[in-house]
This record gives sequence, structure tokens and C-alpha cells, in this order.
Amino acid sequence: MKGHARDGLVHVGGDARQRFYDSRGYGRPREGDDVVLAPVEAAHLLFRGDLDAVEVEGRDCGFADYLARQGPGFGARFVVYADLRDRGFYLSPARDGWVADSEGIDFVVYPRGDGPWDDTEAYRIRTVSERADVAAGALGDVTLAVVDEESDITYFETERLALPDDAPETPPTADGVLLDDRVVVWEPPERLHHAFFYGQPLTGRAAEHAPLQLSLVEAAHLAAVGALSVEGGVEAVVAHGRDAEGDRFDRRLRAYRALRDAGYTPKTGFKFGADFRVYHDIEDADNLGHSPWLVRALPADHTFSPRDVALDVRLAHGVRKRMVFALDAQDSPDWLAVSRLTP
Amino acid sequence: MKGHARDGLVHVGGDARQRFYDSRGYGRPREGDDVVLAPVEAAHLLFRGDLDAVEVEGRDCGFADYLARQGPGFGARFVVYADLRDRGFYLSPARDGWVADSEGIDFVVYPRGDGPWDDTEAYRIRTVSERADVAAGALGDVTLAVVDEESDITYFETERLALPDDAPETPPTADGVLLDDRVVVWEPPERLHHAFFYGQPLTGRAAEHAPLQLSLVEAAHLAAVGALSVEGGVEAVVAHGRDAEGDRFDRRLRAYRALRDAGYTPKTGFKFGADFRVYHDIEDADNLGHSPWLVRALPADHTFSPRDVALDVRLAHGVRKRMVFALDAQDSPDWLAVSRLTP
Repeated sequence: MKGHARDGLVHVGGDARQRFYDSRGYGRPREGDDVVLAPVEAAHLLFRGDLDAVEVEGRDCGFADYLARQGPGFGARFVVYADLRDRGFYLSPARDGWVADSEGIDFVVYPRGDGPWDDTEAYRIRTVSERADVAAGALGDVTLAVVDEESDITYFETERLALPDDAPETPPTADGVLLDDRVVVWEPPERLHHAFFYGQPLTGRAAEHAPLQLSLVEAAHLAAVGALSVEGGVEAVVAHGRDAEGDRFDRRLRAYRALRDAGYTPKTGFKFGADFRVYHDIEDADNLGHSPWLVRALPADHTFSPRDVALDVRLAHGVRKRMVFALDAQDSPDWLAVSRLTP
Repeated sequence: MKGHARDGLVHVGGDARQRFYDSRGYGRPREGDDVVLAPVEAAHLLFRGDLDAVEVEGRDCGFADYLARQGPGFGARFVVYADLRDRGFYLSPARDGWVADSEGIDFVVYPRGDGPWDDTEAYRIRTVSERADVAAGALGDVTLAVVDEESDITYFETERLALPDDAPETPPTADGVLLDDRVVVWEPPERLHHAFFYGQPLTGRAAEHAPLQLSLVEAAHLAAVGALSVEGGVEAVVAHGRDAEGDRFDRRLRAYRALRDAGYTPKTGFKFGADFRVYHDIEDADNLGHSPWLVRALPADHTFSPRDVALDVRLAHGVRKRMVFALDAQDSPDWLAVSRLTP
């Protein structure tokens, strides 16, 4: 059986409709029993031997020839298409008129057992090479299929999150001294660390009256909500933070404040290479429970390298946390969760 | 008991020698029973209440006052000093004349039970803030103590590695076609993948005669050792790699080749966010065993952000691998292993 390339599609006659579309969800039916296939579908049918050749500009092409005639990025899309077929899914190339909202995606994958004749979707797939950059703003409600240099595929689910609206209790007031990249509270109210989990006791042990070291983001937030007196006020703390980190400090502070305002408890994520680890419900400093999120604060116009996403998400997964990116915005960040997915 | 600050040291008289040096390894003895202390030692003795005050410019300072008079970076050094003392170590500030080779480090830590009067060393510690940059070239044979923004400490052991000298067998020859960021071998000799673990079969399954997809680094290496024919030769493959990745491709290729020349088997480390995962002894593609290394290839003049080190090392640890950085050099990279350490 042979196809004919025309206008960016491959036309197949004979009983193609029954063989390819009706029974296996390839292409779209046309008048009579004809079917049109997208190039990636035609390549897959050639690869499987279900098509013998595709005629391109008067020449019959087998799989290797046909592949060699396609443009950049085709190889990556082909391996993703083939992988999802191998996993038992039917899927359609995201062409205008073939699927809804085709912008920004390459494939719509149907739930197992469903096909293009159903009104269902399991995944909306965007294929990228590991060498490509991916704009953070374009993620959320799309599954990234990253093809690495050895043509292995890693799938990432991306999702926008909303933080709860909370009105958290204001912590007790304290006096602090700005000291070399931190604020020291020499006589902290006990609940500041114990109940609200601000700061780190100077001994490294939870002694009752140990001085408390606050990070600059903690101090800036406490000063802003009126719970910390420090010379120069919140401005002095923020200025110190900017000296040390530049814009990144403001970005981290906005993420920190939004998390605290949601009733969450962010602490440094340094040991995980992130900006914050986030506790959702702490009882007190001795009963923290598990912190379910790792957060990295990024500029709104950040572009991800897929390799960096792989690193963050893999680490988070290994410590049973969810990787959440705080995409900066003027008031409060947008929250983008990314997790590994096995389709 | 009181100390007197003079010429960057704190002088203590009375029975200081016996109390501070002989019995607990603080400072260095001077004439009679006097002892001189480095500022971080004086601060620790103030903090513990073993010194009542240090007189600075005619004024008696307690711990808080004394701390406030020190320069940038002192706070970080103090928390590291205190932490190591808490862990039961004696340690000396790395001053000229106090310890050997004091360049580039802050403390020499003695094995538990030993002190400055012994000729032994457990760790050579360099303290950095999580916000500092650390030149890769300066690492190796030093323990990094990173103080994060909440004054928690993470210790990293750094070590230079030598690769074994091996003369690995040359793989069987094959013909490949450059195709969209990879090289496809349509009729691969079976051992190329099965025995040498080059490439990835196109089906994703280890079918006997499946076409083999080679990454560009694999293909460039195979072409260079005369095991791959491809149009344009190794130059064409390298040019393609540079188009996609710039300098990074050459850097990765030099690391890849050095690993293969050592008899190791590097494969992509993408799923771990690294350049390569490295197998040391594979039997064949079906019996790979565990890959003990993750490798990231970096320019020779790379400066680490401690947060990135934390991320890489934590991930590697979580998958029972060692994080190894390949620091680029003209012939073969220098190898720097970094692991987490609990002193």
C-alpha cells in the first residue's frame, strides 16, 4: 500500500479509512474511503511496514528516505509519536481543524481505548529537544516530552496552582540587629521560632532562650508585617538583601511573602538546591512533619533548559516533594508545578 | 576572665594557657602562661561564657558587641567554628605560622581526640556563604563548609580523581547517516550496542536488527576512532554538534572521549540533569549494573554557585552515585569529585 505526499499531508486510498483511521486512529478520513495522514503518522506506518512507500515528488520513499526528507525537529516528534503508540495510545498531530486549541502543542493523546472519534483527551503533548529552551510562561496544562540526545524521552506534567486564601496570625514582636547577612534577635519571644518557625537558634540546638538568627527574607517579611524592629526598618533589610543578591532577593521575598500569606511556612531549600522548602501545616518547630514542596523563584520571562527542569524535578521526586516554580509577578507570583509523568 | 584585642589577635593572661590551649586547643601559647586567640576563638569563648569580655580599643565587649565589631564573613566563620566544636572537634584558624599551607582555607580540623599539638589533620575547611561564588579550580583536597541564609551548614568534601589508563577495544565499524541531531545506523553490527553500549535502538526495544540512533558525541567519538563512516567524517558531526550547543559540545566531547579512553562507558545523564551517567564495568547492554558516577562537564574557569553544587550533589547522593565534575582542559579534563560530608 502506497501513500502520496501532497500539500504537507499524505493521501492514501483503497481501504485506508478502515485500516488506518477506523481501526487504529491514524489520520483523518476524506471523501470515500480515503485518508489523509500527517507526515509523522505516515512515517510511523512506513516504519511498521503498514505502508510500503510514500511517493514524494514522483519518487517512492521508504522509511529512511522519507525521514531524511523532513525538516528539523521531525526526528524528535517521530520518536515521541512512536513511543506513545508503543504505550498503547492513539494520538493525533495537533493540526488546525484536527484537534481543538492546537497552538503550542504537537499531539493530542486520547485516553487508552479512545481515539480521534471521541471527545476526550488524556495529554496535550509538546515535544522539545533537550537542547531547546522552553519559555516558563508557556507551561501549565501541557505535557512536555523532552527527547534527550540519545533519543530517550522524559515526560513532564506541568500545572498552574492556586494558593489558598488565608489570614495567618501575626507573630509576636521582636527586636533585631542586622549583622553580616542575617538579623540576630538576642532575646527572641519563644513562639517566634517554636510556633511560627522563624529563624534558627544560634546554638544549632533548640535551647529555650538562645538568640535567634533570621535570614534576610524572614527579617524583611517580619519587619513588613510589623513584627520586627530593626534599625532602618524593612528598607534597610531589603537594601542589604539586594546588595548580596540583586534582583533575586526581591523575587525571593515576593515568593516568600505570598507563601506566608497563604498560611504556608517556607524555610530555606538550600540543601535541595532550591530557594525554599515549604511546610503546609506545621504544629510547632518540634513537629514540622514533611515539607511537600520545593520552590524555586524565577523571573516571569524565564526560559527553562530542559536539563535544569530534569534536575529539579528528579531531585524533588527523590525526596517525595513537588517541584513548584514561582514565576515572578508584581504582586504575587504565578505558581507552576512540574512533575515527572509516565504516560 | 578578660582578653585584650591587639594586632588582630586577642591576648589572654593568667592561667589561659592551661585553661584554653592545653586542655581545649584554643589559640596558641605565648611566653609564660599567656595565650593568643584568633577573633573567632575569642568569640566562641565569649559565647560560651569562658571569657567575660574582650577589651577592644579601651572598651569591654561582650559576645554581641564583639560580633558587631567584626567584618563581613565573620558570622559565617563563627557558626562553622561553633558547629565543629559542638561536634567534638578541636580546630585552629588557618593563620600563617599556626597551620601548614594556610592559603585558601579558614580552619584546620584535627581528628577527634587530637589537637594543635599533634601533627594530624582531619579536614581542611573553607567557609563560604551560599551567596558566594567558588572557583572550581580552587577545589580538591579541601572541605567546603557552606553557610546558607538560615545559618545552617552543609559540608562538601572535594577531591581530585585520576582516571585509569586503559586501552579499550575498538568497536566494530558501521555506516551512519546524520539525521536531525543524531546519527542513524540503519544496519548496525550487533555488538555496537549490545557489547559496547553505543546508541539506542530505534524501536526503544533491543530488537536484534533495529536501526541504532547514535548521539552526536557518540558518533563523533566513533568516527574519530575509525569505527564510524559518516558523510563529512568526524568534522561534519562535530560541526553539527557545535551548531546545536556551541562550545559546550566540544567540552562534552573531550569528557566523553576521556571516559571512553579510560575504559568507562558514558551514557546521557539527562534524566539526572547531568551530562553523563558513567558505567565502570558493563558486561553487555542487558547487564549494565549500576552507574556509579554522574558527570557534568564545565569550563576550566567555571565558578560554582554553592546552591548548584548542593543540587547536583544531593541528587547524585539520592541515586547512590558520585558527582564528578569534568573541568575542561586542552587534552583531557581534570576530574573533581564532590560529596556531602558529615564531620
